[in-house]
Amino acid sequence: MIKTDILIIGAGPTGLFAVFEAGLLQLKCHLIDALPQPGGQCAEIYPKKPIYDIPGFPEILAGDLVTNLMEQIKPFQPGFTLGERAETIEKLEDGQFVVTTNRGTRHQAPVIAIAGGLGSFEPRKPLLKNLPQYEDQGVAYMIKDPEVYRDKKVVIAGGGDSALDWTIYLADMAAELTLVHRRNEFRGALDSVEKVQQLKDQGKIRLITPAEVTDLKGKDKLESVVVTKTSEDGKEIELHTDYFIPLFGLSPKLGPIADWGLEIEKNAIKVDNTLDYQTNIPGIYAIGDVNTYPGKLKLILCGFHEATLMCQSAYRRIHPDKRYVMKYTTVGGIHGFDGSKKEAPKAVVKAIE
Amino acid sequence: MIKTDILIIGAGPTGLFAVFEAGLLQLKCHLIDALPQPGGQCAEIYPKKPIYDIPGFPEILAGDLVTNLMEQIKPFQPGFTLGERAETIEKLEDGQFVVTTNRGTRHQAPVIAIAGGLGSFEPRKPLLKNLPQYEDQGVAYMIKDPEVYRDKKVVIAGGGDSALDWTIYLADMAAELTLVHRRNEFRGALDSVEKVQQLKDQGKIRLITPAEVTDLKGKDKLESVVVTKTSEDGKEIELHTDYFIPLFGLSPKLGPIADWGLEIEKNAIKVDNTLDYQTNIPGIYAIGDVNTYPGKLKLILCGFHEATLMCQSAYRRIHPDKRYVMKYTTVGGIHGFDGSKKEAPKAVVKAIE
Repeated sequence: MIKTDILIIGAGPTGLFAVFEAGLLQLKCHLIDALPQPGGQCAEIYPKKPIYDIPGFPEILAGDLVTNLMEQIKPFQPGFTLGERAETIEKLEDGQFVVTTNRGTRHQAPVIAIAGGLGSFEPRKPLLKNLPQYEDQGVAYMIKDPEVYRDKKVVIAGGGDSALDWTIYLADMAAELTLVHRRNEFRGALDSVEKVQQLKDQGKIRLITPAEVTDLKGKDKLESVVVTKTSEDGKEIELHTDYFIPLFGLSPKLGPIADWGLEIEKNAIKVDNTLDYQTNIPGIYAIGDVNTYPGKLKLILCGFHEATLMCQSAYRRIHPDKRYVMKYTTVGGIHGFDGSKKEAPKAVVKAIE
Repeated sequence: MIKTDILIIGAGPTGLFAVFEAGLLQLKCHLIDALPQPGGQCAEIYPKKPIYDIPGFPEILAGDLVTNLMEQIKPFQPGFTLGERAETIEKLEDGQFVVTTNRGTRHQAPVIAIAGGLGSFEPRKPLLKNLPQYEDQGVAYMIKDPEVYRDKKVVIAGGGDSALDWTIYLADMAAELTLVHRRNEFRGALDSVEKVQQLKDQGKIRLITPAEVTDLKGKDKLESVVVTKTSEDGKEIELHTDYFIPLFGLSPKLGPIADWGLEIEKNAIKVDNTLDYQTNIPGIYAIGDVNTYPGKLKLILCGFHEATLMCQSAYRRIHPDKRYVMKYTTVGGIHGFDGSKKEAPKAVVKAIE
């Protein structure tokens, strides 16, 4: 059982910044996210896109914002449960909550902060009847650890940024890499498309288009895929492979959280914006794009504010007996849980003679 | 008469960021500030201090935050009335407001956003009976344009960062520079104290401590100051000078805004935090440190959120007939009033052959 002060569901920018504000109050955080890395959409969907409305950054790439936030919260040593989806919640007699993921990992905390964005990102899957039997047995919808594919035979399917980027990444690592797409045209950043063209010209990858993977074969685990070429009267090719990775995009779903007894409105969780962004269940807060209230704007900068006010309320809930006096970081500095300390250079009092 | 869409009173970080959010909605802004430059406290009081709780910046100097915000809002060409204090407000028959400064500059707008921080920073003045008669006639409490002092005789009084920094800045420019302080000890950044010591050792400035300026002389304008040395039985020295600049710090005062008919609580303006941070007077909003509501935290990041929601409400007030659909900057880019355009590189659709 993982125990923490604030259990944050969703490791996007809002969830990450909550760790910082909690840290200033000496509260520890643990984050759960269905994606294999922190950063939410910013890291998974558009890491290379510039954002223009983060205050103080005339322009910042979404991926760099995540990197900066990870650096900012480092002193407060957050824990992470990644690649797992928060599935069920139960309330213990002492008021604490226990959240269990789809893989059975259990987390206990007195305060839950749902920072789930548009929901947990679920992969769009190809329509193949025997797909489920090979999941985790050669079929993967997200790449959590690229090292898994070193010196293996890999078939990637898809025609967007994700398929292009992972093809480029794995081209040198995999023993053999095949990219299958149902059209000849790919949709992505110009330099990614050009790089894949180059890899193909150099013979470093095999490209099969327009084509689809239409069958999976193998005894216990995946052994081969059948690729059907749509341009050549449905000619079938059987490719021996260790892995098949369909990268058809992710679509956000509120998911199991919708059944936690929270008030939901238009696919978002209703919160009390007059005070602390608490939901209808005391001790459960919702911050960032996942919540809704009158005048709500789904902007990252609003999530930062909501996370900050939530932490104040969480502090009072966890320490009803303590009185907290806010100190500005400019005055009080940062005291990390790892013993690190940052503070403004002190003024000196010194005679001039 | 200066006319704009949103008249922002206070050019600190919150007021500056409001320009950006208004710009996204195609609304123009003009800012009034009592200080001679934008940035509020961050620029005037602690430009060299690191702030640790701006989301996405593990550390940023207050002055750099202001520089970044100025760069971020540049495409939206804000107007500035600096070094003047918003004094009176009147409401016209058509619902527009007219705000007049202490120097008589008039501004007209349908929406007022008070982003006044802790108030307008008023200089602490020395107790000299004939001080008022020399104000703007040789006596200045803030340095608006250092060029004024080129090749002039200048006496600075004070023992803090401001006195040290301006002594360093003007040492080479002024014909003659004297620094007077009532103690031998100065309080400021170590390198500033050391630099002033150096200037004194090199004979580039005259230092008189412990001492106070006790009298001002001159017919129409300041011609000399009398300095009394407290360590030598009150020995008096008369110094011929063009300027006397007492830098005894600034203290924030809500000031004339307190008399505008706004609901005030604990030196802050009460606003409706359930929706748009509007005050009790429709069309007048208060954002950032100047406002108060249940759970209010005086943090820059909260001001950013408040400014954003305020702009949405201002838009509906200014364009009651238009329907605004929010576009993410990542998708829609930035379209400056100066014709500039920033946007994410577009994805291409391209065949790989």
